[in-house]
Amino acid sequence: MNSLENIVSLCKRRGFIFPGSDVYGGMAGTWDYGPLGIMLKKKIMDAWWGYFVEQRDNMYGVDAAIIMNPKTWVASGHTATFADPLVECKECKSRFRADKIADGISESVTTEQFLATHTKCPVCGKENWGPIRKFNMMFKTHVGAVDDDSSIAYLRPETAQGIFTNYKNVIDTIYPNLPFGIAQQGKAFRNEISPRDFILRDRECTQMEIEYFVHPDTWQENFEKLLSENHHFLEKIMGLSKDKLHDYEVPADDRAHYSKRTVDFMFDYPNGQEELMGLAYRTDFDLANIERESGKSMEYRDKVTGETFIPHVIEPSIGVERLFLAILSNSYIEEEIDGNKRIVLKLPENLAPHKFCVSPLLKNKPELVAKAKEVYDQLRIKYTYVTWDDSGNIGKRYRKQDEIGTPKCIVVDFDTLEDNTVTVRDRDTTKQIRVDIADL
Amino acid sequence: MNSLENIVSLCKRRGFIFPGSDVYGGMAGTWDYGPLGIMLKKKIMDAWWGYFVEQRDNMYGVDAAIIMNPKTWVASGHTATFADPLVECKECKSRFRADKIADGISESVTTEQFLATHTKCPVCGKENWGPIRKFNMMFKTHVGAVDDDSSIAYLRPETAQGIFTNYKNVIDTIYPNLPFGIAQQGKAFRNEISPRDFILRDRECTQMEIEYFVHPDTWQENFEKLLSENHHFLEKIMGLSKDKLHDYEVPADDRAHYSKRTVDFMFDYPNGQEELMGLAYRTDFDLANIERESGKSMEYRDKVTGETFIPHVIEPSIGVERLFLAILSNSYIEEEIDGNKRIVLKLPENLAPHKFCVSPLLKNKPELVAKAKEVYDQLRIKYTYVTWDDSGNIGKRYRKQDEIGTPKCIVVDFDTLEDNTVTVRDRDTTKQIRVDIADL
Repeated sequence: MNSLENIVSLCKRRGFIFPGSDVYGGMAGTWDYGPLGIMLKKKIMDAWWGYFVEQRDNMYGVDAAIIMNPKTWVASGHTATFADPLVECKECKSRFRADKIADGISESVTTEQFLATHTKCPVCGKENWGPIRKFNMMFKTHVGAVDDDSSIAYLRPETAQGIFTNYKNVIDTIYPNLPFGIAQQGKAFRNEISPRDFILRDRECTQMEIEYFVHPDTWQENFEKLLSENHHFLEKIMGLSKDKLHDYEVPADDRAHYSKRTVDFMFDYPNGQEELMGLAYRTDFDLANIERESGKSMEYRDKVTGETFIPHVIEPSIGVERLFLAILSNSYIEEEIDGNKRIVLKLPENLAPHKFCVSPLLKNKPELVAKAKEVYDQLRIKYTYVTWDDSGNIGKRYRKQDEIGTPKCIVVDFDTLEDNTVTVRDRDTTKQIRVDIADL
Repeated sequence: MNSLENIVSLCKRRGFIFPGSDVYGGMAGTWDYGPLGIMLKKKIMDAWWGYFVEQRDNMYGVDAAIIMNPKTWVASGHTATFADPLVECKECKSRFRADKIADGISESVTTEQFLATHTKCPVCGKENWGPIRKFNMMFKTHVGAVDDDSSIAYLRPETAQGIFTNYKNVIDTIYPNLPFGIAQQGKAFRNEISPRDFILRDRECTQMEIEYFVHPDTWQENFEKLLSENHHFLEKIMGLSKDKLHDYEVPADDRAHYSKRTVDFMFDYPNGQEELMGLAYRTDFDLANIERESGKSMEYRDKVTGETFIPHVIEPSIGVERLFLAILSNSYIEEEIDGNKRIVLKLPENLAPHKFCVSPLLKNKPELVAKAKEVYDQLRIKYTYVTWDDSGNIGKRYRKQDEIGTPKCIVVDFDTLEDNTVTVRDRDTTKQIRVDIADL
């Protein structure tokens, strides 16, 4: 029941997420956040920034440009290796990501391996393939008025390099003690050959990344600390069920050659288990690359011991979209209450777009509407996220507020005019209680 | 004294803004926000979103993709007209924006007009020019695995179209009463031929835009309302001096043909008056363009009267970078206090990266450090933005906190250990008073 399609449908119906450029028939791999989606997205991003940056003494934020000097991607290895295996059908000219249309092959598939799978073209059904070629997933553009190789630049495929390239600026202006972290939230772009699975594999995503700089001898304790803090964030602040979250210790064979430990946080999405976030020990790989490519020293000098060395790095990295979908999947419930089917988003209170909904029992009774507006105005002063709803009948309103995850509905009826009490209905239990307006 | 160069220097020295891709020698027209810059930038953006969106009942947010269906830019006119006059020197092959190297010509200069100015090449000094050609400022890229004309897409040159293209989605999911607004904050990209003036004319900027949909008969009153609300925001919340802000009523000849009124908010920047924001009455121009290009009706049906029509639009549009620089220019002061020169950023309290700085008078006295840490921890619970500083001597710390705009410095000294009072020093007056820790 809790299928991806149902969630996509709810998102569009209620204004969480629309297909990008919807009015023009869409733009594959892009999605637009609607009025409720941006509220949830902002709460997710603010909670992350609050927990990992603002509440700490040793965490610094940056906000780097999306278009970076192309040397960045030479140093990081993206120019050479950020590529998917692309194959073209010679019959119908359709192009595909080879490892996605053939079973049992990996991203590093060769032409021979692919041909041996005897895959047929998903479009025309023929089996007449060109060679596998590496398709670089960075979006390319030209900067300035000259349109040649000298002006090529790329949209950043990750926010991490915007952090590493500012490491020296942070040292030069602030010179923090180790360990310290630099955090960034921002857009990253990947020219996916076949974007799919809603916002799980889109062409634009919003990343939240930290590069945590530590003394090489202390990487293990800092890794453990970040592991447990990220679990705390996902379970206690984002409200994800512990039993849907799985730590996957990436085995040595699958890890980057420089990494001694990587943990992928897997989440049980409606369509199966997928990576939600990653925590990787990256040694001095990135800073050493930058040192080589830029010719500038990335060494850190310990203020007490005078020891100089390139700090090692632990990187927690999460995509807002993957987290957004995990939260929706975790909250989306279809259930039967007193014989009636309902869809409800059991969002944690700190993430629900609206905490309260105020409405008059009947919208054509001016005295009820006036009284309800009074209650609404009173709550608006105290709580930021109260919404007003006088559309349809009360049953429809409950259905709507359930679907957008509003924890409490407050209804003003004729009794309110007599005794100043209102009905407060709970989203999760659907139980209603009478509460004095003064006690709201 | 208050020159742009001094502000750029402060920004780099203190970690507000660094040149983009600094470590690799830069990337023209891009800038990275450092630890203090991102704090100020976030406060600006949150204050705008709070004032214009969260505190209102009729304002809806969206967050649209940066890469949009190319039909968007055909409909909006950007494909045809979002261009600067480009001219190439035939001698040295340098390219320039014609209206920036010749005096007294406009953006719509013809080749003949340009040649008549007898401008010499700023690089080689010769006068041998090619023809003026229109250079489209949209960054072009290719989406998907096919690299031909069919896959061309652009980075959005404005956030406005991400709002207009979602107008119908908002109507279909929420159906608000008129007037209502849709707001967006996000990146926009312009391939400036010659980026300059620090963050005033960069290639990536963060826009904050509202499209305010009104009944055509009511545009004037709504325009006036938005005009005064934007002044309130800039003067009371952003703290800009009234006397540096100038409303420029754009004359009919300079307005877009469809607009009956446009007001540019000009600000006295260090290098002269420049546009800070714009408020434009755009009639039904944008929605009518989308209707024509998409074939979908953009009509609105009044819920009471049943009247159907395309709403008219008033657009307040502001760039975060221009506002950021206006705030810095407005706050940056070099002055002499008791014979000592100092630089101080007199930022409004609600925008200062840190509200308080706590430090021990001497950093080599453990008892002072311990007591100061106690005060720091106590304030951290109550105030989010308190910083710790025990670098250098107290004079250096004041100088630093002045430069980053911290309103109050709290210093723990030997008297504190006796009587639990601390010195509180005011940024603007440099006056010091003794305050009981309990009263902080």
